[in-house]
Amino acid sequence: MAHLAGNLLVAQSGGPTVVINASIAGVITEAGKHDCIEEFYGGANGILGILNEELIDLQDEKARAIEGLRYTPAAALGTCRYKIDFKKNPEAASRDMDRLFEVFKAHNIRYFFYAGGNDSQDTAHKVHEQALARGWEMRVIGVPKTIDNDLPHTDHCPGYGSVIKYNAATVMEVAFDVSSMATDDGSCCLIEVMGRAAGWIAAGTVLAKRSEADAPHVILLPEIPLDEEAFLNRVKETVDQLGYCVVVVGEGLKNAAGQELGADKSRLDAFGHPVLSGAADALKEIIQHKLELKTRTVKLGYAQRAAAHYGSQTDAEEAFACGEAAVRAAVEGKSGFMVKLVRTSRDPYRWDTGLQPLGDIANVEHFLPRDWISEDGFLPNEKFIQYARPLIQGETVVPHEDGLPKYVVLEKNRVEKQLPPRA
Amino acid sequence: MAHLAGNLLVAQSGGPTVVINASIAGVITEAGKHDCIEEFYGGANGILGILNEELIDLQDEKARAIEGLRYTPAAALGTCRYKIDFKKNPEAASRDMDRLFEVFKAHNIRYFFYAGGNDSQDTAHKVHEQALARGWEMRVIGVPKTIDNDLPHTDHCPGYGSVIKYNAATVMEVAFDVSSMATDDGSCCLIEVMGRAAGWIAAGTVLAKRSEADAPHVILLPEIPLDEEAFLNRVKETVDQLGYCVVVVGEGLKNAAGQELGADKSRLDAFGHPVLSGAADALKEIIQHKLELKTRTVKLGYAQRAAAHYGSQTDAEEAFACGEAAVRAAVEGKSGFMVKLVRTSRDPYRWDTGLQPLGDIANVEHFLPRDWISEDGFLPNEKFIQYARPLIQGETVVPHEDGLPKYVVLEKNRVEKQLPPRA
Repeated sequence: MAHLAGNLLVAQSGGPTVVINASIAGVITEAGKHDCIEEFYGGANGILGILNEELIDLQDEKARAIEGLRYTPAAALGTCRYKIDFKKNPEAASRDMDRLFEVFKAHNIRYFFYAGGNDSQDTAHKVHEQALARGWEMRVIGVPKTIDNDLPHTDHCPGYGSVIKYNAATVMEVAFDVSSMATDDGSCCLIEVMGRAAGWIAAGTVLAKRSEADAPHVILLPEIPLDEEAFLNRVKETVDQLGYCVVVVGEGLKNAAGQELGADKSRLDAFGHPVLSGAADALKEIIQHKLELKTRTVKLGYAQRAAAHYGSQTDAEEAFACGEAAVRAAVEGKSGFMVKLVRTSRDPYRWDTGLQPLGDIANVEHFLPRDWISEDGFLPNEKFIQYARPLIQGETVVPHEDGLPKYVVLEKNRVEKQLPPRA
Repeated sequence: MAHLAGNLLVAQSGGPTVVINASIAGVITEAGKHDCIEEFYGGANGILGILNEELIDLQDEKARAIEGLRYTPAAALGTCRYKIDFKKNPEAASRDMDRLFEVFKAHNIRYFFYAGGNDSQDTAHKVHEQALARGWEMRVIGVPKTIDNDLPHTDHCPGYGSVIKYNAATVMEVAFDVSSMATDDGSCCLIEVMGRAAGWIAAGTVLAKRSEADAPHVILLPEIPLDEEAFLNRVKETVDQLGYCVVVVGEGLKNAAGQELGADKSRLDAFGHPVLSGAADALKEIIQHKLELKTRTVKLGYAQRAAAHYGSQTDAEEAFACGEAAVRAAVEGKSGFMVKLVRTSRDPYRWDTGLQPLGDIANVEHFLPRDWISEDGFLPNEKFIQYARPLIQGETVVPHEDGLPKYVVLEKNRVEKQLPPRA
């Protein structure tokens, strides 16, 4: 098969992770091995930047910076949450698609790689279909990325291993702290982690547990509506037994009525607006009121998905390999696929990359299987632990300068625009 | 001078740090070099455990565990906030003191080391005075410990370097994340850190700033009442210029009336209790209301003072040396002192330990000097940076098991009790 000659465009989308840049480094590194790929461009801030013809000249970056992407958190090219939504607004979507292909043609983009979660894979899928429909020969491959671990068909998602490694270490450390402070009165600490719909992130903190008595003592998953009485009983039992209790709560935890705990509209702030306190703060009130127990909260927020000072080496390697695999597939003539991670052996853990049609991915959410969770719903079980433990192995090595990580910032020099501004 | 022969008792008090156990390791290691020190005991949960004659046999611990204390967070012996308060309750304090000396005598305690902050040094001071008054020959030395860095006379406090290293790295990482997400609408992230009275911890995050445009863009210190209008202007300016703004706020931030922002009693929770939301959440409401800016919060809470997976090597070495120095001073016949850290050279940074009479320490709080803060109050200046930067140098190396830190838990076998239970 004759190789398709032309330029490469890679972009990032959605919430960043610790290793999404490693995937970009994988794309660039692999692309350098193929003569058919001529210029390497990055989309500034995902699809939004491409629509604005904001293309970054990646070959103008220093080799050292590309190497540094392997351990630099966040989205080095910039990201966006912009969605080309044919259902909600078909006219705007259609206009966006026209513009995208104007940009592709103006810059002879023949290889397009989009790293992201569900929405981003959906966008990649549409771009692939449109390329076919418009007769623009182009290879479109999605690169998986999401801390939420909710993409289907892939064993897990790059970004997930690092977030649960950091969160599990944090839970372990906070538990050491709370335990050492527990004297007569007992205490409880609630740690809120990300995950609005799926509990993968919260579940991952179970890896901190090396014995029955270890934290986390309860993990509240968004998939399982809170049984307040059973929860309070469990907290009380744990405090009676150990003197303290550490609870991990996914931010999207819901009550029996299906309402998010952290989004109780009945609470008003000083301006008369509803207080969206977060699940941990809402639970803290319940615990303090019903159990009269000293309770503290930790809300890791963005810190957990950016904590590259403590990334999983396994995760970083897999993310890099996903980028490489995307380019290899495209060069081989494939289009319309997402790279996936395949577990080829459970023990010892071995993995490989594979390909899945983008049409199978878009807008399908992958939830934690119910039979990976204990019957009472308060902890993931051994099935989950066997699944998750390999993903946090190894620690990334980050160069330091003056006592802090030395992450890279790309120059992001722009490719000269060929088109009039977007209408 | 003849060496005083007898047993050693070491205990920890107050909120833990990443390196308070390193100080205990220093005490035990140094004690092993002196024949006059016979048995090594630890007080379980500080002074509270000593009152209950809960003594830990430290020579029964594995050598590997003592070594592991150098990188294990929290208080391995347990800690407490119990205070012997002669002012508030002279009778109870007097009873406690009698009991303490009963325990000391029953176990022939001749060397007493207490690691902690202001309150703990106050306790050590009283024990020293009582030993003199009661004619019980004993050497009492305080070991400094507090993430708050508010002990006087010492250049800085063990525990401080590690908390600001972790917090600064976190601020840097969150800023990478928020910056890469900033597209058209702009966004703000508020990171709440510890420090109720003194702003040392919040100030330390300035080390993440390597250029004018870098985060943190504003640091709100508890020492400086919030000027809401100036603050909002600064956030708006920053977002207009950079597309995002990262604000660090000390938990004890106060408004112009001197009231803590996070403790606004006018807000009621679902049970009709005041919501103690924390400073970051309170500021978030103000920003969202007044600037209509997308705002997220991170509350590191206990995670910051327990994050031994990313401790400062300088801090760990200094903490260990403080433990060693305490024992050396005691063996030399000194009593009634706190070990302090002395900066013997600014550039290159060099340090040594010294001794300060406990009477100079107790209940004196050391605040961030006003001339180490910019005139507008929004950022520490170069004087602070030169002071703080050496304290975060080097990263502790923590052994790992299955992808997570392998911290030690002491056996804590108890020494046989000699006394009837505490009245």
